[in-house]
Amino acid sequence: MSRSILTVPVHRVDGECATPFQDLLAVEEPLEIRLGGKTVSVTMRTPGHDPELAAGFLFTEGILSAPAQIQEVRSSKNAITIDLKPEVAIDFDRLQRHFYTTSSCGVCGKASIEALRMQGCPVLPAKSTTVAASVVQGLPKVLRADQRIIERTGGLHGAALFDAHGKLLLVREDVGRHNAVDKVIGAEFLARRIPLQETLLLVSGRASFELTQKSLIAGIPILAAVGAPSSLAVETAQRFNMTLLGFVRDGRFNIYSGASRIQ
Amino acid sequence: MSRSILTVPVHRVDGECATPFQDLLAVEEPLEIRLGGKTVSVTMRTPGHDPELAAGFLFTEGILSAPAQIQEVRSSKNAITIDLKPEVAIDFDRLQRHFYTTSSCGVCGKASIEALRMQGCPVLPAKSTTVAASVVQGLPKVLRADQRIIERTGGLHGAALFDAHGKLLLVREDVGRHNAVDKVIGAEFLARRIPLQETLLLVSGRASFELTQKSLIAGIPILAAVGAPSSLAVETAQRFNMTLLGFVRDGRFNIYSGASRIQ
Repeated sequence: MSRSILTVPVHRVDGECATPFQDLLAVEEPLEIRLGGKTVSVTMRTPGHDPELAAGFLFTEGILSAPAQIQEVRSSKNAITIDLKPEVAIDFDRLQRHFYTTSSCGVCGKASIEALRMQGCPVLPAKSTTVAASVVQGLPKVLRADQRIIERTGGLHGAALFDAHGKLLLVREDVGRHNAVDKVIGAEFLARRIPLQETLLLVSGRASFELTQKSLIAGIPILAAVGAPSSLAVETAQRFNMTLLGFVRDGRFNIYSGASRIQ
Repeated sequence: MSRSILTVPVHRVDGECATPFQDLLAVEEPLEIRLGGKTVSVTMRTPGHDPELAAGFLFTEGILSAPAQIQEVRSSKNAITIDLKPEVAIDFDRLQRHFYTTSSCGVCGKASIEALRMQGCPVLPAKSTTVAASVVQGLPKVLRADQRIIERTGGLHGAALFDAHGKLLLVREDVGRHNAVDKVIGAEFLARRIPLQETLLLVSGRASFELTQKSLIAGIPILAAVGAPSSLAVETAQRFNMTLLGFVRDGRFNIYSGASRIQ
């Protein structure tokens, strides 16, 4: 039994009939992420791939910019400590600061997008990658075939990285969809494969601003969601020339941004 | 058109055929929550019921304990400011502090549950409320009938408060499921109806630790989720004698904790 799944006794009620059975639950436990001696975050996550989660979180939040900054990654029970090389200076204020405010309009969606640009998020080159519509239509089937835990518990989100031909490169699962994305991006970050050009990221749920932001920072040109995108996810994708696909299921999908990358 | 929905031009791809049409998106915009002159949070949310969201957030995070502490709630564009009465002292450190650590085991699920107890979260009285299984089985239908935006965009989470006879009291929607729950609890908090005895909260997605914690602080005895619960949600419900139901759909549901409240 994986650390990601727990068995519990439950009662299933169907009509007037209650039947006892053993159900499988997705495990949710806190993880403390430390940078040197400093706790930078405590996140609720599904255990597994914790170093990747910590690295992905620190990278997509703009705290780390390159794997070469890392001296050592240490694991203990429910904590990951990332030690940096002595010469690396980290702007800890970045963690406290809110990236959503401009002097002109205060907090708003436009300011959130502008903050991404200020953070150094580049506009993606047009037609950097193209993918066939038939490849996109086949992705959910590949994800379902590989995603074991979600099938068994119904309680996890999945994130899967594909190449432009629809070949599955990496899949990660978590009770938090941002964690699943951080695990994928963190693994690639540690393997020194950022920016993730020529790739497509498929997420099992909806596409929010947060997921769009994380994908952009990793240089992923195509984000595809099984569910609906939010308004700000679409605006962000359009601003940075990213391809955003939604409702990728049942052999169909919608193109919200960057149609030129779909053949 | 509501502020919660936006229309955008998209292409729907079905097989080899791409058809242009107007899609409806759930709006996602940041909201700044201020306590007096201090920004305590910036959360991505769907506009609407912002004062309730701010009040619910501050209450379920343990910052506010009673509506009588509030002098005035002021709205401006994408910001809610809650002014407190002069005699109210607020422990701002609580926002920075992590509630997940104990000296014995560090960060872990058990410590997260213990922190709730330290925060003053009471164990719910056994059999405080009982609900008929047939009432539970009928809830998703009531939620679907009232939840207009999710039907149109597919992009929102819903939270609905029912009485013990299955009568719908309040429903709120948001791109973030914690926000939908905060909006419901915040409305009841401002209306001085906390603790929410004799009620049941139905959430459209999965049941996480966070949603269980928020419901517990509001004194809700029964939490029902259309999706799966996490391991820590189940452990928390068991510890505080809360009834936790999962997979409430298609005329069935599972009981993970507190079976005595289901008739």
